[in-house]
Amino acid sequence: MTDSPEYLKKRAFFDSLLTIYGRKPVLEALEDPSLPVHKLHLAESNRKDAFISRIEALAETRNIEIAHWDRKGLSRISKNARQDQGVALDLALPRYGTAEAFLEENRDGRYELLALDGITNPQNLGMIIRSACAGGIDGILLPRKGCAQIDPLVIKASVGTLFKTRILRCDQLAPVLVKFAERGARVCALSSHASDTLRTIDDAAPNIFVLGNETHGVSPAVDNACTNRLRIPMQNGVESLNVAITAALISFRHQF
Amino acid sequence: MTDSPEYLKKRAFFDSLLTIYGRKPVLEALEDPSLPVHKLHLAESNRKDAFISRIEALAETRNIEIAHWDRKGLSRISKNARQDQGVALDLALPRYGTAEAFLEENRDGRYELLALDGITNPQNLGMIIRSACAGGIDGILLPRKGCAQIDPLVIKASVGTLFKTRILRCDQLAPVLVKFAERGARVCALSSHASDTLRTIDDAAPNIFVLGNETHGVSPAVDNACTNRLRIPMQNGVESLNVAITAALISFRHQF
Repeated sequence: MTDSPEYLKKRAFFDSLLTIYGRKPVLEALEDPSLPVHKLHLAESNRKDAFISRIEALAETRNIEIAHWDRKGLSRISKNARQDQGVALDLALPRYGTAEAFLEENRDGRYELLALDGITNPQNLGMIIRSACAGGIDGILLPRKGCAQIDPLVIKASVGTLFKTRILRCDQLAPVLVKFAERGARVCALSSHASDTLRTIDDAAPNIFVLGNETHGVSPAVDNACTNRLRIPMQNGVESLNVAITAALISFRHQF
Repeated sequence: MTDSPEYLKKRAFFDSLLTIYGRKPVLEALEDPSLPVHKLHLAESNRKDAFISRIEALAETRNIEIAHWDRKGLSRISKNARQDQGVALDLALPRYGTAEAFLEENRDGRYELLALDGITNPQNLGMIIRSACAGGIDGILLPRKGCAQIDPLVIKASVGTLFKTRILRCDQLAPVLVKFAERGARVCALSSHASDTLRTIDDAAPNIFVLGNETHGVSPAVDNACTNRLRIPMQNGVESLNVAITAALISFRHQF
């Protein structure tokens, strides 16, 4: 394959696919007419019980393509053979894309992103998505390495906001942050040890706020890629906040 | 007993006691020298194993009184016979008191309180305490009815902030809110249906912000006691936030 326009278009489409798996999550997604579904994947080994009949009927009603696979084929799609229960579903999310594509589209724009470094708790990831969406953040940089990935727990904790939020995937966070900084973005690590506070950051440049692991904070490689370090001022000698709370305070700071 | 000064002093002391239970939470509390411990309670039926020996030794080192009870007596203290594991511990928390006492002390003052109505999830309660403490809220009104109570899960989720936060207990929330309103406090129900936003509230009067159950919102009885209704403005058609996120946005709103 070459970098033809046709190839790039196809690639952008596949980049927008989010694959979920497991019987209950897939059934719930099929029952929600607001979710844009691309394809249903079933293992040939599934017994044809009431559940499988129900999701097949839903897929047919909605004109959704069904693909049948051996167990190995299905596990390549779900990427989680232990928990897929023989069922996977591709959602085609228009707001689900890559960090690179966002950077190309926003060469000269103003934007505010969150970047997640080592957020491993799915509850926290879901709450961050919900708060960022409600606060009007333009996107969330979610690296494949070291972070929880979008799964049924995250979808549930996001309470319907995942599908309204621009999730920007990348493999590793540090090199992507370097690229954003080269194009003029401020890349701000949140750290309780920083001397500057969140208040010192204006909107004269695009801003990316990097949230680190709850226990270990921002990792050294990612910290190296940051241009600023900020803290949220706290009372009563409190040293840290839950990472989803921090995300919310950043996302809503223009509202107060 | 009469309302003598001696009686009132004693009563204020007992009001400041927080009883925790269970082997691990009690051991952890005894190992933390920053926690002011009043008394250790043990069931006579406990086998004298390494664990019991360890907490007895810690209590002796710290000069903490030990009381021995039959199972029924211990369960009256722990109020949770199923989970106390024969062990309970009274913490004497100077910042743990009653709503009534706070109201007497702050007849003419300015203050900001959170009031919790139907917050049943201990994780949320712990996160609310942590965020409110870090944001500088003056106290949290926690009714005995309908809310999660301070237990080991809440203590853990508060990440050390419970002991720095003024927890104001009451039996039921609605009549207490009426009393605060009579003394000039604004009692503001947070509701996504309100027309006014949080921004419209200034500091010219004491403010109490009432947070309702995540699913059902503020209950009708409590809503009746409120003088104002407020919403947090949200983007992208998001309808609600996690209650701990809402608590944080209120608590930190003067920082931005």
